[in-house]
Amino acid sequence: MFESAEIGHSIDKETYEKEVAVLREALLEAQYELKQQARFPVIILINGIEGAGKGETVKLLNEWMDPRLIRVESFLLPTDEELSRPPQWRFWRRLPPKGTTGIFFGNWYSQMLYARVTGEIKDSQLDGLIGDAERFERMYSDEGALIFKFWFHLSKKQLKERLKALENDPSRSWQLSEVDWKQSEVYDKFVRYGERVLRRTSRDYAPWYVVEGSDERYRSLTVGRTILESLQAALKRKDRPTPQPHAAPLVSSLDNKGLLDALDLSLSLDKDQYKEQLAKEQARLATLMRDKRFRSHSLIAVFEGNDAAGKGGAIRRVTDALDPRQYRIVPIAAPTEEERAQPYLWRFWRHIPARRQFTIFDRSWYGRVLVERVEGFASDADWLRAYAEINDFEEQLANYNIVLVKFWLSIDQETQLERFKERESIPFKRFKITEEDWRNRDKWDLYVDAVGDMVDRTSTEIAPWTLIEANDKRYARVKVLRTINYALEAAYGSSKKSKKD
Amino acid sequence: MFESAEIGHSIDKETYEKEVAVLREALLEAQYELKQQARFPVIILINGIEGAGKGETVKLLNEWMDPRLIRVESFLLPTDEELSRPPQWRFWRRLPPKGTTGIFFGNWYSQMLYARVTGEIKDSQLDGLIGDAERFERMYSDEGALIFKFWFHLSKKQLKERLKALENDPSRSWQLSEVDWKQSEVYDKFVRYGERVLRRTSRDYAPWYVVEGSDERYRSLTVGRTILESLQAALKRKDRPTPQPHAAPLVSSLDNKGLLDALDLSLSLDKDQYKEQLAKEQARLATLMRDKRFRSHSLIAVFEGNDAAGKGGAIRRVTDALDPRQYRIVPIAAPTEEERAQPYLWRFWRHIPARRQFTIFDRSWYGRVLVERVEGFASDADWLRAYAEINDFEEQLANYNIVLVKFWLSIDQETQLERFKERESIPFKRFKITEEDWRNRDKWDLYVDAVGDMVDRTSTEIAPWTLIEANDKRYARVKVLRTINYALEAAYGSSKKSKKD
Repeated sequence: MFESAEIGHSIDKETYEKEVAVLREALLEAQYELKQQARFPVIILINGIEGAGKGETVKLLNEWMDPRLIRVESFLLPTDEELSRPPQWRFWRRLPPKGTTGIFFGNWYSQMLYARVTGEIKDSQLDGLIGDAERFERMYSDEGALIFKFWFHLSKKQLKERLKALENDPSRSWQLSEVDWKQSEVYDKFVRYGERVLRRTSRDYAPWYVVEGSDERYRSLTVGRTILESLQAALKRKDRPTPQPHAAPLVSSLDNKGLLDALDLSLSLDKDQYKEQLAKEQARLATLMRDKRFRSHSLIAVFEGNDAAGKGGAIRRVTDALDPRQYRIVPIAAPTEEERAQPYLWRFWRHIPARRQFTIFDRSWYGRVLVERVEGFASDADWLRAYAEINDFEEQLANYNIVLVKFWLSIDQETQLERFKERESIPFKRFKITEEDWRNRDKWDLYVDAVGDMVDRTSTEIAPWTLIEANDKRYARVKVLRTINYALEAAYGSSKKSKKD
Repeated sequence: MFESAEIGHSIDKETYEKEVAVLREALLEAQYELKQQARFPVIILINGIEGAGKGETVKLLNEWMDPRLIRVESFLLPTDEELSRPPQWRFWRRLPPKGTTGIFFGNWYSQMLYARVTGEIKDSQLDGLIGDAERFERMYSDEGALIFKFWFHLSKKQLKERLKALENDPSRSWQLSEVDWKQSEVYDKFVRYGERVLRRTSRDYAPWYVVEGSDERYRSLTVGRTILESLQAALKRKDRPTPQPHAAPLVSSLDNKGLLDALDLSLSLDKDQYKEQLAKEQARLATLMRDKRFRSHSLIAVFEGNDAAGKGGAIRRVTDALDPRQYRIVPIAAPTEEERAQPYLWRFWRHIPARRQFTIFDRSWYGRVLVERVEGFASDADWLRAYAEINDFEEQLANYNIVLVKFWLSIDQETQLERFKERESIPFKRFKITEEDWRNRDKWDLYVDAVGDMVDRTSTEIAPWTLIEANDKRYARVKVLRTINYALEAAYGSSKKSKKD
């Protein structure tokens, strides 16, 4: 895999200087065009052998291009805000907005290789991380991102010469990482694991470019030209290169019977039962949240449901039990400008709770496969790929000991009509009902299909959906609380869940 | 000051329940109206004696109002991301967006009182912090924010009873802070310093409300009614209650001679001088940035100047000297949606560098007294108050050992015309010139006035302006680099600056 990067490529000075003059102009022009179109971000991952010119290349790109449109992100030791969230969070928070370029000097690849070379993780864990990287890049590319992955290579002999040179030059010593590259054992391991990583993650949508690092001119020109050509091509394509879905979009179930039809919406609690059970479940939640074992967890509750199904009331019954410093409610409305400049899941990642915190999403990332699907805001390709992306996302949360509960509050059409009318007649509730709510009612069947597909495709062992029979608000509220309590107990108890509902 | 809060206020249950029903409805309605108008944020500061009902009140407000439109922010131990920036940063980053409510449970007042009561700081430092709070709140109010400051009070006797009750109730023990309130000495100090703080910071635009905490019903109703009435009044006022400036807006200097006229724009360097001096200053900067003493500093460089004065080129000569991980360039364009929902300075605070980092602002917070003044985007009152607000802001940076250099790159009208024409004729530069640039030229004199006033009012000992003669790009670039180097050396040397330029 690295053979062609050990043959001693080089370029003479004259050719270099002539080429660079043209290249710089073209790169700048492409950069401004990227900014103007603002359709997609560019991300450049810098990896490879120590001393092979990673740092110099990053510096050079900053000199050649307009540095105001580039952000170099280096990932040194994670901050404590980063350590208290899933490891992917620190990368998500620094993704470049559309129209700009992010250079990730240090990234998920350097982290996994460092961990493997130092023996911190085993092959099987490395493979897991490789899979994560693949899925992330697939998603990022589907969202339109242009991804470059450069691997700077040196033969063992070249490395030894470079290291000597670097050591004697204190102004460049920052280019040396913690791993002790002087040992040839490190080189061997790094190349071996590097190859494994590159082999698996070099894909059409995010290929690796292996660059021989020994000759500065060759190296620089190769990187510059690679970026320029792909960027120009991407700017010319007016559409995102999103592949059309192979399969037809999902179809309604043939017998017209859905998951939601199976719910017994007559379930209810009388006032006394409600009072007693609510108090009991609230006390239980308060205790569970103060349990020492919560220190190694955090909690996310997702509320989806029909309009007027009682999400707000159910949320309030949950928060009533808690210290207001323990939770945060994130109402999901239309994305802001900054959010629209990022991949779909970015605006949810930014609200992921730190350890020992509880975040309630009032509507959520499922918007893509619900309202965006039904209203046609997302293309078929986009919402169809969302199921798998969401499953990946939730797996990353679960791996970090985040307890995730997801509710669909379900009511029937008659109940909804009653509640709409009630809302219109009470002054302080009139803000809760809009024209749009009425329009959504006409799409009832489309939503039934969307919910059915959503549950079928995203109710997983690590993050199951709980359907809530919500015609009776009292029954719904108690079931919500009880479900959260079970989930916390299961998480405390063991990895084996004991669902009793 | 606390006399009326020790007389044993109380309200009977029946009155309370009747009033609360009405109050809750009205609060909800006001909240939705606030959201719809989205003109201003509401901030509620919670302070006072331990056990006087602070936590309970926060909880109650969450129950009464729509918790989706409230964010409770508690300020416990600062994270390391917070510790590596000026102390105000952690508050700025959590200010509620317009249309929403932030409850600051713990805030600048609790921090200063804690520090004073424990003896960490002296009276003079307390006074300094009081001044900071006053200036911040004045600014925040001028930006439209509705500010509530609640002080929950108990007499010493009442406190003792409450503490006993809290101790015996483990589910409420989270309400107890670290300070040992059981000692009556702590109470005395807290009340004494509390009074000093309240006296100074209770202002028309951000008054303190002292609430007797012993009777839960009295306390709750008082807080609820206070919020409701002020909020309703604020919602009715369609304009911000910004006072008109007392003085007339600034006028052109009577003899038509300004600061910029005094610059010798013929200053220049020939190619050889430039090459030599640039290399020297770049090497000096590289060394200074790697100096151990930089570890306790950070660096901000602000670039302002006429259109086409060469800001971009000067910035590039600075960054060429550095490791790309050492700096970040923040180009300031129109504020994003999220930024528009915050006070003016918010979008600059969010980019303040952490310790050992260097941020370059390509245009800056001075936009308010330059383009916004000249174009009429800001009212006279708004840009006139900006001078003092900016001075406060920069003082906070300086107090945290941030080295701040500010450049105005100055060219004359003929030079600008030449450069505009050149830009139009070169393909990859055409993105740098717009219709707006041509329009700005017609306002040359207005900008001259604005720059003069800006320098007069914001060139301070801690953050002086450096005017750069920029008709000759070479001269300008070297002077920029040299100025940054002087500033770093001065910061390393001592607090006494040795400006030699």
